[in-house]
Amino acid sequence: MTPQAVNLVPFVSVDHMMKIVTEIGVEEVLAHLCDYLEEDFKRWELFDKTPRVASHSVSGVIELMPTSDGDVYGFKYVNGHPQNTTVGLQTVTAFGMLSDVTTGYPLMLSEMTILTALRTAATSVLAAKYLAPTGSKTMAMIGNGSQSEFQALAFKKILGITSLRLYDIDDNAARKCAANLAGRGFDIVICDSKEKAVEGAEIITTVTADKQLATILTDNMVGAGVHINAIGGDCPGKTELHKDILMRSDIFVEYTPQTRIEGEIQQLAHDHPVVELWQVIKGDIPGRRGSQQLTIFDSVGFAIEDFSALRYLRDQLDRTGHFENLDMLADPDDPRDLFGMVMRSVQTFA
Amino acid sequence: MTPQAVNLVPFVSVDHMMKIVTEIGVEEVLAHLCDYLEEDFKRWELFDKTPRVASHSVSGVIELMPTSDGDVYGFKYVNGHPQNTTVGLQTVTAFGMLSDVTTGYPLMLSEMTILTALRTAATSVLAAKYLAPTGSKTMAMIGNGSQSEFQALAFKKILGITSLRLYDIDDNAARKCAANLAGRGFDIVICDSKEKAVEGAEIITTVTADKQLATILTDNMVGAGVHINAIGGDCPGKTELHKDILMRSDIFVEYTPQTRIEGEIQQLAHDHPVVELWQVIKGDIPGRRGSQQLTIFDSVGFAIEDFSALRYLRDQLDRTGHFENLDMLADPDDPRDLFGMVMRSVQTFA
Repeated sequence: MTPQAVNLVPFVSVDHMMKIVTEIGVEEVLAHLCDYLEEDFKRWELFDKTPRVASHSVSGVIELMPTSDGDVYGFKYVNGHPQNTTVGLQTVTAFGMLSDVTTGYPLMLSEMTILTALRTAATSVLAAKYLAPTGSKTMAMIGNGSQSEFQALAFKKILGITSLRLYDIDDNAARKCAANLAGRGFDIVICDSKEKAVEGAEIITTVTADKQLATILTDNMVGAGVHINAIGGDCPGKTELHKDILMRSDIFVEYTPQTRIEGEIQQLAHDHPVVELWQVIKGDIPGRRGSQQLTIFDSVGFAIEDFSALRYLRDQLDRTGHFENLDMLADPDDPRDLFGMVMRSVQTFA
Repeated sequence: MTPQAVNLVPFVSVDHMMKIVTEIGVEEVLAHLCDYLEEDFKRWELFDKTPRVASHSVSGVIELMPTSDGDVYGFKYVNGHPQNTTVGLQTVTAFGMLSDVTTGYPLMLSEMTILTALRTAATSVLAAKYLAPTGSKTMAMIGNGSQSEFQALAFKKILGITSLRLYDIDDNAARKCAANLAGRGFDIVICDSKEKAVEGAEIITTVTADKQLATILTDNMVGAGVHINAIGGDCPGKTELHKDILMRSDIFVEYTPQTRIEGEIQQLAHDHPVVELWQVIKGDIPGRRGSQQLTIFDSVGFAIEDFSALRYLRDQLDRTGHFENLDMLADPDDPRDLFGMVMRSVQTFA
């Protein structure tokens, strides 16, 4: 980063983000994010960790997700409002910030609706690198909304998935997903049932949006040796997997206290054994141990993942030039003279 | 507000804020903020209340302060880094946001370094309206930094304070404060000791910045009937008043669980009786009961005050036009087609 004027905060708008992603290439961005995530999962223990701060309402939730590595502080604002799509709005929108721990001054503000989709896919594939069967080629995707294409491309780029089996309760979503992924090297089958979608899949990604205790996967649908990438069960009262699947699986989570509240394991006893993903990535605990093991990544999203994504984004600013500076921080010549700064500014308003 | 495009978020920069304040007039803004605060203190019980989410480091603290009235959600990002002034930075910088609870979509983003100084002064004088001796004319101000002029003008505008007695360990700060307030209808005396500053003052405002257990006021300095507006003791390990003063005072706070941790009363037992200011403003509990009562407003700042300030600011946007729209929210035509929006955007980058 070039030195910034202390009162200016680089801002990455939606338009900037789209330019960054398309210039670098979406698959390359996903691969880079996976690398940044892996670095931060390896130093997981040093981060400040706290469950997200949630404000619930009848229509959804607004959350703040802060963390810090001691040098840089980051937080994300994110909402989850499942009914938004009925009025043409996004279920999830987000923005985030990095700040300098030493001074408390913001370093970057960014849109994170797009960035969250990217980091979620990169986190999923990072987990699958350690948990999915070796040589996996086929992934079922149940739920073909906003996240689906990012998931598919991440799994192709990093794991070599080339066969996709799509299912959504809305045919249009599946067709949208297939059309968006056309020409990107996938063999794609749109299925007319969840049961057909999972046939022959080594990896099952569930990424549905309804806020309810749903049963997207029942026990008889899931054979031995499969890896389940469970994305959609991510807040209290919102799950996707039948409890019986959980009971015969090895379950991997991001941050246990948060996942107990928000993840699939909200269906289980408070002391049901789970492994935190960083322990696998750091090498403390094995990931997949054999071809018959059923593994689940019970993903709810955690602040450190947003931190990694913002850290990657900040490293792209100088090179791409895709940001603008916001006049966000009052910066009087004498730091004790905020009032004088405001009053003297009137002279420039002629 | 005119209807905004859903993907655009009105942003009030530092420059916009200075224009709004100088156009409306700083004293008028303080009076309006006091009104908005009073409205929200009267409906205090309906707000979501949570202690701020703090990330502490050796050099300071970064905090997120969220709240919601059920229709609108607000939060503030604020840092406190006492050593920042030694490198020409502000001790406190801040920004904040309002969002629509129904959709989770942001409604406004704003600088809050200036706005926080304004709302802090407006909150102080709102408390003093109910707690200071009737007919108070003289205020001592110990600590003459960024907050001081805003405090003075709020107390003049709403309470009729016309005599100021200033003291700061740094003479330059006191002279800066006096110069900034010249011609605004005050009789100002710069004092060479704290003891002289408090002579004859009905109200004592302590607003120093050092992060330590300081004793700005000792017991013998404070006579009967005085109101103490204690602003500076606002985080763990940072207080301004000797415990003996607290023991013979009636203490009024914003939100008890937070003030027990951060305020002057961190020096007292966990069950030492205090009154929450909203109870006084709503009329449930009397404020000042007589001319000999020693009252303390142990102010640490609470999220609802920022909410009130942001709510006032939002109501000024259309009238003043001082904001810009930020392209902050991804808004695909089909809300499930975030990926398609990103990919198709490349065609516009010729």
